[in-house]
Amino acid sequence: MSGFADRHIGPSAHEQAKMLAECGYGSLDALVEAAVPAAIRNPRELDLLPPASESEATAELRVLAAKNRRLTQMIGLGFSDTVTPPVIRRNVLESPAWYTAYTPYQPEISQGRLEALLNFQTMVSTLTALDTANASLLDESTAVAEAVMLMRRQSKAKSPRVVLDAECLPQTIAVVRTRAEAVGIEVDVRDLHSGLPDEFFGVVVQYPGASGVLRGKGFYEAIGTVAKAAGALYTVAADLLALTLVTAPGEFGADIAAGSTQRFGVPLGYGGPHAGYLAVRTGLERSLPGRLVGVSVDADGNPAYRLALQTREQHIRREKATSNICTAQVLPAVLAAMYAVYHGPEGLKAIAERVHGLASGLAAALREGGVEVVHESFFDTVLAHVPGRAQQVIAAARRSGINLGPVDADHVRIACDEVTTVDTLRGVLLAFELESRVEPGPSAVPPGLARESEYLTHEVFHQHRSETSMLRYLRRLSDMDYALDRGMIPLGSCTMKLNATAEMEPISWPEFAGLHPFAPAEDAAGYHELIEQLCGWLAEVTGYDKVSLQPNAGSQGEFAGLLAIRAYHKANGQPERDVCLIPSSAHGTNAASAVLAGMRVVVVACNADGDVDLGDLQAKVDSHRDTLAAIMVTYPSTHGVYENGIGELARIVHGAGGQVYVDGANLNALLGLAKPGEFGGDVSHLNLHKTFCIPHGGGGPGVGPVAVRAHLAPYLPGHPGLPESGVGPVSAAPYGSASILPISWAYVRMMGAEGLTSATKVAVLAANYIAARLSPHYPVLYTGRGGLVAHECILDLRALTKRTGVTVDDVAKRLVDYGFHAPTMSFPVAGTLMVEPTESEDVAEIDRFCDAMIAIRREIEEVAEGRWAVEQSPLRGAPHTAETLTSDWNLPYDRKLAVYPPGVTPKTKYWPPVRRIDGAYGDRNLVCSCPPIEAYGS
Amino acid sequence: MSGFADRHIGPSAHEQAKMLAECGYGSLDALVEAAVPAAIRNPRELDLLPPASESEATAELRVLAAKNRRLTQMIGLGFSDTVTPPVIRRNVLESPAWYTAYTPYQPEISQGRLEALLNFQTMVSTLTALDTANASLLDESTAVAEAVMLMRRQSKAKSPRVVLDAECLPQTIAVVRTRAEAVGIEVDVRDLHSGLPDEFFGVVVQYPGASGVLRGKGFYEAIGTVAKAAGALYTVAADLLALTLVTAPGEFGADIAAGSTQRFGVPLGYGGPHAGYLAVRTGLERSLPGRLVGVSVDADGNPAYRLALQTREQHIRREKATSNICTAQVLPAVLAAMYAVYHGPEGLKAIAERVHGLASGLAAALREGGVEVVHESFFDTVLAHVPGRAQQVIAAARRSGINLGPVDADHVRIACDEVTTVDTLRGVLLAFELESRVEPGPSAVPPGLARESEYLTHEVFHQHRSETSMLRYLRRLSDMDYALDRGMIPLGSCTMKLNATAEMEPISWPEFAGLHPFAPAEDAAGYHELIEQLCGWLAEVTGYDKVSLQPNAGSQGEFAGLLAIRAYHKANGQPERDVCLIPSSAHGTNAASAVLAGMRVVVVACNADGDVDLGDLQAKVDSHRDTLAAIMVTYPSTHGVYENGIGELARIVHGAGGQVYVDGANLNALLGLAKPGEFGGDVSHLNLHKTFCIPHGGGGPGVGPVAVRAHLAPYLPGHPGLPESGVGPVSAAPYGSASILPISWAYVRMMGAEGLTSATKVAVLAANYIAARLSPHYPVLYTGRGGLVAHECILDLRALTKRTGVTVDDVAKRLVDYGFHAPTMSFPVAGTLMVEPTESEDVAEIDRFCDAMIAIRREIEEVAEGRWAVEQSPLRGAPHTAETLTSDWNLPYDRKLAVYPPGVTPKTKYWPPVRRIDGAYGDRNLVCSCPPIEAYGS
Repeated sequence: MSGFADRHIGPSAHEQAKMLAECGYGSLDALVEAAVPAAIRNPRELDLLPPASESEATAELRVLAAKNRRLTQMIGLGFSDTVTPPVIRRNVLESPAWYTAYTPYQPEISQGRLEALLNFQTMVSTLTALDTANASLLDESTAVAEAVMLMRRQSKAKSPRVVLDAECLPQTIAVVRTRAEAVGIEVDVRDLHSGLPDEFFGVVVQYPGASGVLRGKGFYEAIGTVAKAAGALYTVAADLLALTLVTAPGEFGADIAAGSTQRFGVPLGYGGPHAGYLAVRTGLERSLPGRLVGVSVDADGNPAYRLALQTREQHIRREKATSNICTAQVLPAVLAAMYAVYHGPEGLKAIAERVHGLASGLAAALREGGVEVVHESFFDTVLAHVPGRAQQVIAAARRSGINLGPVDADHVRIACDEVTTVDTLRGVLLAFELESRVEPGPSAVPPGLARESEYLTHEVFHQHRSETSMLRYLRRLSDMDYALDRGMIPLGSCTMKLNATAEMEPISWPEFAGLHPFAPAEDAAGYHELIEQLCGWLAEVTGYDKVSLQPNAGSQGEFAGLLAIRAYHKANGQPERDVCLIPSSAHGTNAASAVLAGMRVVVVACNADGDVDLGDLQAKVDSHRDTLAAIMVTYPSTHGVYENGIGELARIVHGAGGQVYVDGANLNALLGLAKPGEFGGDVSHLNLHKTFCIPHGGGGPGVGPVAVRAHLAPYLPGHPGLPESGVGPVSAAPYGSASILPISWAYVRMMGAEGLTSATKVAVLAANYIAARLSPHYPVLYTGRGGLVAHECILDLRALTKRTGVTVDDVAKRLVDYGFHAPTMSFPVAGTLMVEPTESEDVAEIDRFCDAMIAIRREIEEVAEGRWAVEQSPLRGAPHTAETLTSDWNLPYDRKLAVYPPGVTPKTKYWPPVRRIDGAYGDRNLVCSCPPIEAYGS
Repeated sequence: MSGFADRHIGPSAHEQAKMLAECGYGSLDALVEAAVPAAIRNPRELDLLPPASESEATAELRVLAAKNRRLTQMIGLGFSDTVTPPVIRRNVLESPAWYTAYTPYQPEISQGRLEALLNFQTMVSTLTALDTANASLLDESTAVAEAVMLMRRQSKAKSPRVVLDAECLPQTIAVVRTRAEAVGIEVDVRDLHSGLPDEFFGVVVQYPGASGVLRGKGFYEAIGTVAKAAGALYTVAADLLALTLVTAPGEFGADIAAGSTQRFGVPLGYGGPHAGYLAVRTGLERSLPGRLVGVSVDADGNPAYRLALQTREQHIRREKATSNICTAQVLPAVLAAMYAVYHGPEGLKAIAERVHGLASGLAAALREGGVEVVHESFFDTVLAHVPGRAQQVIAAARRSGINLGPVDADHVRIACDEVTTVDTLRGVLLAFELESRVEPGPSAVPPGLARESEYLTHEVFHQHRSETSMLRYLRRLSDMDYALDRGMIPLGSCTMKLNATAEMEPISWPEFAGLHPFAPAEDAAGYHELIEQLCGWLAEVTGYDKVSLQPNAGSQGEFAGLLAIRAYHKANGQPERDVCLIPSSAHGTNAASAVLAGMRVVVVACNADGDVDLGDLQAKVDSHRDTLAAIMVTYPSTHGVYENGIGELARIVHGAGGQVYVDGANLNALLGLAKPGEFGGDVSHLNLHKTFCIPHGGGGPGVGPVAVRAHLAPYLPGHPGLPESGVGPVSAAPYGSASILPISWAYVRMMGAEGLTSATKVAVLAANYIAARLSPHYPVLYTGRGGLVAHECILDLRALTKRTGVTVDDVAKRLVDYGFHAPTMSFPVAGTLMVEPTESEDVAEIDRFCDAMIAIRREIEEVAEGRWAVEQSPLRGAPHTAETLTSDWNLPYDRKLAVYPPGVTPKTKYWPPVRRIDGAYGDRNLVCSCPPIEAYGS
């Protein structure tokens, strides 16, 4: 009977033989031997457990899950329990059509999730009363950190100081400190009632405060006034549910709002993944970090969505980028947006009023029982003053199954949320030795602060009140999109492999979904065991000594890795080491992260083969010998090649006292064959959403663990909730996006050493098979030993473009007509397509892709030979919608060729909902919230 | 905050007001008062628990689930544990695209599930080596009972005797006895080694036997020879997994094979739902009961699937039908077929060999330990002889977490299955006080019986070995289909309402999915509590005294209800009462069930208003006074009207000593307003898959509980596993399709009395709103009090058809172009459409439907006015595929009107995969297994 690996790996043994023959090799091992330099090969099999079947892995995860203890969570601090509407859970979180989708870089085939994200932006923007919101950031704390960086970039004030409200969430203060320290920002945490300093570039207020407090409207307005006078900017970290009842930040002078959308239906999940948000007033939108969805038009003039203002992102601007943010939290953002769509403004307000009423009733009951309640005004959180008794009250509550929030010896925080009931509160009161009942109390919102403006007025927030309607809306959106459940997504560098159901199922289990990240460790024994095992396995497969799972995206992993290097040099008395060498072929994120870590970027050239130019490297090392901090290098290279010089490269850098950062983006070409920690790396980040099967979710969540050799281990990210570390936290939660870790755990558990290694080999085979099949039609740019590529290959279209005018864009969009997601366009080399088939595609699908590419090549030849003008060719006309077929047809090619080119069968045709989108038009006419429905009239 | 009822019910209060205005009523209560006769109105609110929220209901179900105890199940007897591949669980069982689909009566929009069912038929047909298999029957025992009926119809032998192998499953013997007794078939259960009687019309052999035994090939061949000589037919009840290793029934002379496909990946589920199968040799296919998928062609000549030979079914032939089977087990059949697709012949054989090897190893270990193993030859089940110790061994095994099969004081049955491991067997041996290890043993298949022929040779069983490929195949199939997740399915009499996610989620939980139906009652405490509560609630809402959940389809419920009536009359010394009155408007199933229950059908006329003609009723009662058994009447009538005469009707029948059977098909118009058990009914069956939210699943599973007044309670279905009853079982499992009962439980629990009543009222409002909007365009046939309909309305097209040639078929297919599933066609009146919107459709969707019907009416007018010939009209051309747009276009209407008629937006267009299907062609050229792939070339 076949094991899981045989289901994960697409090509059967029989198919592999066929592919090997095409590549000219007799066996998989012969191919791998030829492709991978012997010097880096790992001589031993990975030391992992023998592979478990799907049923066995599920059973083991059930045992782990059962070790978690799910109490009623009233800890607060930015994490609230919530009810995920089942229709949204099943049809988004558990639907491959949503979770296997890629980032919407090909907007024509991503209209569904782009609409969902536009709903998200509209939701944030109207609730905060700010003009433009992005979609989305990684968590509340990093969102606030991004706001701080934004304020620094945009503030007129020269001061390096940012002021943080002492009521800011403790994890937010810690994350901001970590980020600020690296770039020389001074953090001034203070009680804002004591006034603001004379000079500062920005101020952050928590709204309501971490202790629950709501201050008067005058307080919030005054801060804005003072900030404005100082030339500083004003950020409000706001709770979106509270904003249904209290004045919006945009209405009392805030320039920026940041926060979390977790409590809009996204499970606590022991800390994540949750979508952070960031919204800004007009004038700041072009400086906004992260992804931004905007409205534009397609070739037929119909409205269409796409990512806006991409030129400000790190893949364009590199070290000059707005931020290093790459992965967003698309799937949680869609959940939150759909929660708002399903409840609508009345529903959200009703939930907020119920939560508020219960908190107010609790405060009244406590006071009546003689317990001092510290704040008169609050939204959902009550701060009780119980001199010397805090620990005792908290312990008593735990005996009733309730986690209250510890503050200090004298105070207890009690946060109400959507699942709080009067019964819960009776349990809370018992912990205070009170036996009274709670009834919903009167408003505890300060006079004048009550919200009067409307929100969520767009009709999408009013149309889907029944489950039937919601179900259909979700289906309709997902039907517009192309995801892995329809066909191959051959994206170079993105490793769009199978996200197996057995890996995905456990994340819905309440024992994983229902834990607060700050719950006592004893509640999370199952999580800790899982985390420890997974860290051990990741260390084993990468050859490093220690792993932190805290970074919740690859960019965060890079940042954490670079911080570790910086801290290491400082600890060695070499704080001046701040130069980060980065090859010209690197991901833009590398450079952006280096800047955020306070480093200076020095670019190292590549040679004609695309490899790092070791001569240039030596020269750069020589000229920065005393200040050399590190080199960041991707292996195999971003060109998809196993470079022979990696060992030499590491020796040169180490010889000059630098550290070697191996970007783990291409780990899918190494697993089981070679270990970065053994062939020269000091630190790597991994992308669990690439190599380790966490789905891309339409552009997130990701997990970007950082793995280090022992000498860097003391500098892995710390957290207020973890043992001491030399470096602060990089994420809001101690274990980042903990609730999706079972996915990668299950993958490793079910593949075992042989399965993982086999996957790598087949990934390399598949890339070389494509290179072999397509090289007669498109030159393959850059190969390594034996003319072989690693796990991806670059098809060079530049000569064709020059000769015919047919661009990579044209080919990419024409692939949509053929039923494919395009490969990566113009990365790492402009004018090329990078193809990564992964091990999960079977030969039938790979052949279908190759056949399509060859057929497109023939179409290009028609243009070359002058039978079609490029402007009148199906390449430029692509993608073709069904609607185009019903119009008059004056093109030199016929309707059938337009939509059913060779290999496309009518029954299984994927229909793109829009034609080619004009991105520039949208950037000129920026619209980032839902347009009125009339705009869609056809 | 809104409760679940507000999510279940489509129209908001505001929308209801609009609809009421259109109907001319000021309030919902006024409308209901006008529509529903006061005499039947239930004066009290239903006595149910206050409604629970989705979270609360889920939590309560988790408590119930936790009371079930899931041991390793080695009981056997036709139920084996199995691994549902997660990719199939998530993307079929948990996918609304599959489970909210209707029966594929509109084949153009059902090609996906029809292909899945064709795979099912091909799988059964090649494994059994018989020519034609249906898709599907309700369980193994009823499948064998259907085989017995088929043999009786087709046998040349005059004898009323059927011979059953003593090795037949006990529940099969019991179900066959129940069915046989009603129609005068004599059942002769015997050890077949002792020979066959001289005269018999059929023989059934269990293969392998219930005790596990495999007999020699000569044995199986000899039975066929003797049967043939006697003019009798030969049925083999075969285990499909065993058939991968042993000679197929069709290869040793069987005419028929029957059985279960449960062990092909369908959870045990405490007994169901599972798909039964029936396969026959050529010559018997036109007598095959149940649904049969066949290949035909569409209007463009492309191959297309549809249900074949429907003219033999009960909705056409009524009391002369092949069987009363209506609902099939489509969803479990799809699961089983996809399990075969995913594993392929090699995978199935590997599973079978592993199971067989373990059983053989166990037998060897037992013998070695001195335990006598009764049979030399077996597939997966070992019968151990332990004189006097059986109970003790079974008890010991339970202590190790294993349920063995009890036989008698001296024997224990041990059935291996897909989840059995050597560890399991070590536990089994310990129960025998043996401490040895088990290793897979040698073949225990009798010499000569090993299978040599191929099976599952069609390429669909070879293409989808990777999870990625399987995932895409499932998506591709479901994308062809139109289900409730795309839009309204306004099927009269079928009540296609919301199947809420919160209702569906629990059926995947292992605590509900993993129980064997014959596990000791103490293992199923949660199930029993749930069943008891649900029965209580159903009794309360229907006004009856006792409910049985055993019937696993409406037809089975009817049969059980009629058996109860027959048994009651017999117990009263009136066995001659065998006349069943059935109004001419009745569902065909009523008549077919009556015949199966041994009754004579006498038809009662309807008057011009469509109501039962009370005069004719009186006449029929008078002429059959002494032999009157019952009347079967649907309320509201199948014409969708609350008849005033229901009370009088009941009085007339009761007065003549007859019983009143109220068909519960239309209970959705009564719940909370009136109780059949209180307005005259003695017995009803309910359709949990209509009124109580079990999804239609593409044509099953259904659940058809039977509810009776106290005097009939002693005659509810019994079961070998239940306390004594006056009547035998009608299903293989004591509680029928137990695992889907949580759906209906959750529905009632979350709606509460007010919610259920409100749903009924809104269903009535919605039907009357449609009648009001459409009656200016299409006459509404039959109305009741105040010109009102109940929960559905009949649109009469007969005059239009006469005038224009446009048929109900044309309108139904044209609705596909408009993005709708057609209403019920030509039932209960030929030439009409019956529309039932249910309470779950919001007004936007209902208006979209009405607008489409009005637009179609205008198109008909174009034909009437001669602008289009009917043959050249979009009505006759419908449905139009996208492919048609790419061909030359010589029609008097344009492409745009064809596919984007008014109200259809390009972005959300549903594309049918084929054009109108020629059903008659397929019936003439019957092909009921997968055609070779070349047939699909376009």
